[in-house]
Amino acid sequence: MQKTSCDVLVIGGGPAGGVSAVTAKMNNPQKKILVVREQEVQLVPCAIPYVFGKTLGCSEKDVSSCAMAEEMGISTMVGKIEDINMQKKIAYCCDNEISFDKLIFATGSTPFVHASLEHSLALQGVFTIAKDKSFIDKLDAYAKDKKEIVIVGSGFIGVEVALEFASKGKNVTVIGGSKHILQNAFDHEIAKQAEELMLEVGVKYIGRDRVTKIIDKNGDGIVNAVELKSTKVVDAEIVILATGYKPNTTLAQKVGVSLGYYGGIWVDEYMRTQNHDVFAVGDCSARRDFITKEPSKVMLASTSSAEGRIAGSSLYGIEYLKGFSGTIAIFSTMVNETAFASAGVTEDQARAANIDIVVGTFSGVNRHPATIPDAHKQFVKLIAMKYGGQIIGGQIMGGLEAGEMINLVGLIIESHYDIYKVMSMQVATQPRLTSAPTSYPLVMASVVIAQKLKNI
Amino acid sequence: MQKTSCDVLVIGGGPAGGVSAVTAKMNNPQKKILVVREQEVQLVPCAIPYVFGKTLGCSEKDVSSCAMAEEMGISTMVGKIEDINMQKKIAYCCDNEISFDKLIFATGSTPFVHASLEHSLALQGVFTIAKDKSFIDKLDAYAKDKKEIVIVGSGFIGVEVALEFASKGKNVTVIGGSKHILQNAFDHEIAKQAEELMLEVGVKYIGRDRVTKIIDKNGDGIVNAVELKSTKVVDAEIVILATGYKPNTTLAQKVGVSLGYYGGIWVDEYMRTQNHDVFAVGDCSARRDFITKEPSKVMLASTSSAEGRIAGSSLYGIEYLKGFSGTIAIFSTMVNETAFASAGVTEDQARAANIDIVVGTFSGVNRHPATIPDAHKQFVKLIAMKYGGQIIGGQIMGGLEAGEMINLVGLIIESHYDIYKVMSMQVATQPRLTSAPTSYPLVMASVVIAQKLKNI
Repeated sequence: MQKTSCDVLVIGGGPAGGVSAVTAKMNNPQKKILVVREQEVQLVPCAIPYVFGKTLGCSEKDVSSCAMAEEMGISTMVGKIEDINMQKKIAYCCDNEISFDKLIFATGSTPFVHASLEHSLALQGVFTIAKDKSFIDKLDAYAKDKKEIVIVGSGFIGVEVALEFASKGKNVTVIGGSKHILQNAFDHEIAKQAEELMLEVGVKYIGRDRVTKIIDKNGDGIVNAVELKSTKVVDAEIVILATGYKPNTTLAQKVGVSLGYYGGIWVDEYMRTQNHDVFAVGDCSARRDFITKEPSKVMLASTSSAEGRIAGSSLYGIEYLKGFSGTIAIFSTMVNETAFASAGVTEDQARAANIDIVVGTFSGVNRHPATIPDAHKQFVKLIAMKYGGQIIGGQIMGGLEAGEMINLVGLIIESHYDIYKVMSMQVATQPRLTSAPTSYPLVMASVVIAQKLKNI
Repeated sequence: MQKTSCDVLVIGGGPAGGVSAVTAKMNNPQKKILVVREQEVQLVPCAIPYVFGKTLGCSEKDVSSCAMAEEMGISTMVGKIEDINMQKKIAYCCDNEISFDKLIFATGSTPFVHASLEHSLALQGVFTIAKDKSFIDKLDAYAKDKKEIVIVGSGFIGVEVALEFASKGKNVTVIGGSKHILQNAFDHEIAKQAEELMLEVGVKYIGRDRVTKIIDKNGDGIVNAVELKSTKVVDAEIVILATGYKPNTTLAQKVGVSLGYYGGIWVDEYMRTQNHDVFAVGDCSARRDFITKEPSKVMLASTSSAEGRIAGSSLYGIEYLKGFSGTIAIFSTMVNETAFASAGVTEDQARAANIDIVVGTFSGVNRHPATIPDAHKQFVKLIAMKYGGQIIGGQIMGGLEAGEMINLVGLIIESHYDIYKVMSMQVATQPRLTSAPTSYPLVMASVVIAQKLKNI
């Protein structure tokens, strides 16, 4: 056994772990920060889908840089922590005994696979989207000479992976339980348009269905097809299970850390567990929804990074409070050349949570006048509470600007702002960059809601 | 005399007038709203520079649509109101007597020309950028066979016009009083980069100088050159004076409406003048700065639109309060393919206003990983108050996303948020749309400020 000691031990080198370590070091330059991660090379998780298509084309282009952590003097160890003595504050990693003062779990998440399909993972050609370079490389290599791909799951990972494989000429079918793709983040009418764009590049969607069996016709251990609840059979040389992720809490559970919602580690607003020397951040921590306050399965690297920043600032004294209580599920994606972005609750989710709402939409263009050469259609939907007009959700379809515009919607939601605040908000507008000043879409959708509220 | 009557008379058909009228009609569908404007065809003002170059190429592509107002049943009259009897509530327009109940001044602004150069406007080849289609067409036609263009004024109108003329192969020189271009909105180090990009496409800048004389060598009434304070002489076939705008308050003054800062019409937070039946919105109204509370000359169509919305909602009862007190001078522009955006005060302006500040900057890319094909460098500078860390200014250099990212900075400033709020803000990040979740630039610049504040 080799003995190592550190002040802060971070388990996990993804976004949450990385940001925790960097923030901890910034705030405590004299302390020794050690990050233990399982993989030698860490991928940028959000860009994994782009490895498979033309956007990046290989996993080498998706490698996360550790330069900043190294420059700052943060130590790194590659290995798996098998056990921790929480009383003695010693972690065991291969033949290392690591003593620590503060501990941060940033163990991330692992692909969730329905129990009925788990055994099929043993078949050749069946994959998940694990956040692991060797695994991703294996899938990428296996796909080289294959044509027929079935993707199970119509969330953004499934859709992004589908589009990338399609860009390489594969025949891709996405299978999901909801009527349209991306339906956790978008209401039907918007999700439908994303689906139509996906179909334009040849990716088919089979909705309101479910894979009941992954088939190996010849009994040779190689997948051939999937069978659906509807009894449909879809041929497949590759089956990718993109059915979500679950918090990776194997180690936390083993050492007695309490769990919260959906099996994530329970944390307070400073990302502390019940033991205030032990923190948890990112996908392995339990989250709830900002609006409904219900447990949330939403896992996003941006939220994880914000959590890492809080944890890193709360180790030896509390520097500032987490500005949010619950995830606003703020995210964006691209379907071909159209951006889709969402924050807060959808109309469906609001109704399911028994919130009386009023909805406002606006269709325009992202340039002004619309004759500016690269103008793209832009559509905004805002969801406001009937009583008070507070904005609790927003969905955007548009050009590349939607990626930052949704962050404006996010801050509006986080700030509990109402439509009236938005209606007199000062925004910058420029012909080559935004919609017209007279019809800025967030303002216009708020105006629509204000008119509806008047007539109630 | 022909007699016409209306409930709400809006003078001016630009963004402020248009939004006022539309909002007034929405809120009072039974009332007759009449917009009187001087021009038959109204240009989209912000896009006027793009008429001269390759982006639009002609003023016909920059015509503002009146479709919405017409659909809503808003009446329009083309003509100039010469006088108003404020007691009797009657306006005189050519041979029309228009009686009204509520009056909105939205008379906009006209080019400001230094007194010493005013007489030179009579020379052939000397122009301003008046917001008038026939005038713009005249300049466009005149420029067709000319090569040497001097633009006086290095604000965004001057710079945008310069870049467009350069795109058509003209030799363009911009002359301004500040060290670098765009210096009302950007600090030196950023303005300098805009200037270098401008030089890359052949547009020269002569800074810290001033045109003292516009020269007609041959005495034939045609401009040949400008003479500068530095005694330099710059040859010119066309001289464009882009030296700002002044509130157009000729009519308001004539009828006894009180003025405020810089000759704009004095208004309260509901855009009312001292007479509560009379409103003023847009460039003709007096403004002050949101941060310094000093009188402000900033004129932006987006602020005008917000003001129009307030006026239109406050005519017959107050619907909501203007959410801001003072302009945050939020604006964006493009220099070649790089966006420059700014909101709030610059470092220089803050220091001039005796505000103790701490500055944070962050350089990154607008995609993640940086290997995503269309990645563009992205630079953010935030300016925070030393005591409390409130963010009072932001400047962005980047790709097209900067146009909406500055609106996020604007809301942060308007909300009086501090760096700690920004550090735990939830944002959406996506490989093809934004920077990395671990280094979202507004967060990173805030982190830099937080570290500096700790070490003070």
